[in-house]
Amino acid sequence: MAELRINSQAFFHNLKLLANHVGSKEKVAVVLKDNAYGHGLLEMALLCKEAGIASAFVKNEAEAIRIAPYFESVTALYGDVESKSPANVWVALHSLEQIRRIPKGRSVELKVDTGMNRNGIMEEELFVALEAIRAQGLILCGVMAHNGYGDELGSEFFSQQRRFEGVRARVEEYAREHGLPRPRFHALSSSGALRSRNIQDDLVRFGIAIYGYLCAHPLVVSEIGLRPVLSLWARRITTKSLPKGARIGYGGKSELEEEAKKVSTYDVGYGDGFYRLNEHHKLLTAQGERILPRVSMDCLSVVGEREEVCLMEDASELARLFDTIPYEVLTRFSPFLKRVVI
Amino acid sequence: MAELRINSQAFFHNLKLLANHVGSKEKVAVVLKDNAYGHGLLEMALLCKEAGIASAFVKNEAEAIRIAPYFESVTALYGDVESKSPANVWVALHSLEQIRRIPKGRSVELKVDTGMNRNGIMEEELFVALEAIRAQGLILCGVMAHNGYGDELGSEFFSQQRRFEGVRARVEEYAREHGLPRPRFHALSSSGALRSRNIQDDLVRFGIAIYGYLCAHPLVVSEIGLRPVLSLWARRITTKSLPKGARIGYGGKSELEEEAKKVSTYDVGYGDGFYRLNEHHKLLTAQGERILPRVSMDCLSVVGEREEVCLMEDASELARLFDTIPYEVLTRFSPFLKRVVI
Repeated sequence: MAELRINSQAFFHNLKLLANHVGSKEKVAVVLKDNAYGHGLLEMALLCKEAGIASAFVKNEAEAIRIAPYFESVTALYGDVESKSPANVWVALHSLEQIRRIPKGRSVELKVDTGMNRNGIMEEELFVALEAIRAQGLILCGVMAHNGYGDELGSEFFSQQRRFEGVRARVEEYAREHGLPRPRFHALSSSGALRSRNIQDDLVRFGIAIYGYLCAHPLVVSEIGLRPVLSLWARRITTKSLPKGARIGYGGKSELEEEAKKVSTYDVGYGDGFYRLNEHHKLLTAQGERILPRVSMDCLSVVGEREEVCLMEDASELARLFDTIPYEVLTRFSPFLKRVVI
Repeated sequence: MAELRINSQAFFHNLKLLANHVGSKEKVAVVLKDNAYGHGLLEMALLCKEAGIASAFVKNEAEAIRIAPYFESVTALYGDVESKSPANVWVALHSLEQIRRIPKGRSVELKVDTGMNRNGIMEEELFVALEAIRAQGLILCGVMAHNGYGDELGSEFFSQQRRFEGVRARVEEYAREHGLPRPRFHALSSSGALRSRNIQDDLVRFGIAIYGYLCAHPLVVSEIGLRPVLSLWARRITTKSLPKGARIGYGGKSELEEEAKKVSTYDVGYGDGFYRLNEHHKLLTAQGERILPRVSMDCLSVVGEREEVCLMEDASELARLFDTIPYEVLTRFSPFLKRVVI
């Protein structure tokens, strides 16, 4: 049966590098949204617990409930949260209307838009939002932003950071005035944190870096030795001896160029979240065998007869081939694929 | 909350068209593998039961067990099946080794490779396979092939069909000789069936066509009026009034060309199986608003302020944009997205 292997040593290695950079493990929060970027929500939550990580961020309430037992807090980045969810499931607030929908007593983190023009309240709504949170009886545990320019050259990253400093100052003052505990502040992504020397935030939400990747411009963040955590392995279904010229798969788009060869099919296809390689794409297995397009929904053909093949050990190559980023390659993997922690 | 809407009337309409073509509903089998091509395995199984469909084909044992109560037989196309699975879970056999792994008494369908050079036993292995099935005490309920050239011009489709006729004759003779019941025979895909006037097979495995698509060369199969079953809807998270020139999303790759506009974010991203549109792609919602790249993992931005937007009502457009086929666009949708049958 096909499986995704999760390399726990690579993961711990990445966490250690990131903790060293930000100064302490306590400052490291993990982003486990979207089934932990395809790595398996529960599997990664357990590894994080083993590593002593206290704070996680996930997609929504459903993901938060599944891993709440393993963290001090799990923040649902999208959607609302119902009263009956565990108390350590926090909710990120994106708009004034949303604040009014959250049941009294829930811990919340206020998202502020510092220039990405995407989610969160606008800076000019800050005071109204803080008042609404208090009026609604919510517990303001955090104030967050997201640096949408962390991967890019240019000044936008720094102007976003300065705006967040202004937000922090105003919230701190508001908390003092009203005798409220100071919430935690966090605005940096993986690359945002790694390009920053002096991090003022109380914690850093590390997403892609914990899984072993950075997608920043090379002048922005230099290589720090992260290791990819996930690899994709497929098992052999059948092997055939085929003559030169034999055509394989849908539309016979692959033609065997060599003299008689063994060709095998393996149990991974695009229905598992792998890409549908067609005749415009060239890709080898990690061991160097040719993957023969077209990939089917549930299987693919490879020249050779190994019992198992590694179809991917670094998402960067597929990302380049499909004009995208490793995030998309990783999150595509079907949750029904078995995850095996090694 | 974002959702996939399953148009039951479109689905019933497609089933009816296909039943008319093959002559009777009894000849229609449904391919519900890979979460019913992303449509939702359980939701589609229930609609099939309502329509009176008796035979289904799925990816593996896990899928088969989930929907076994709704069909006379459910065939797992890949992998093995354990003794404790319900008796109406049948298994497709791809190799001689696999035959020896299946527990005695299980109903099986033998897959024969008639020229796709992908899965199934070779024709020259047919007699050995039939003997092994009998020796192993398995119940041969079906013999199948797959027409890998159904979508293409050229003679390969017909030569595959002729080879399957030969296989059928040999198996029928073997069954007569050994006093075994005649198994069912099926080799055609959606386009293979629709290009055939006189179908000899006992049933036809309809996959993509039941969901409203055909991907065949237009000279091979003409338009028959199938209707797409699935559409993707997203809910508004926030709306902002942005000035001309405002930059939106990661790297600020979208710049607002118009005078001050409302721009909203919606709760679908590539983490849900939608595509990560980047600055090289142009796509509108079904209502005609611009989707602003880059799409994020959990959200995307659209010019406008509707409460909900339809991001896709026909997978063909996304398929063209990403050099693929509707199958891949559909099966990518996360099983965690809510399916709503309308």
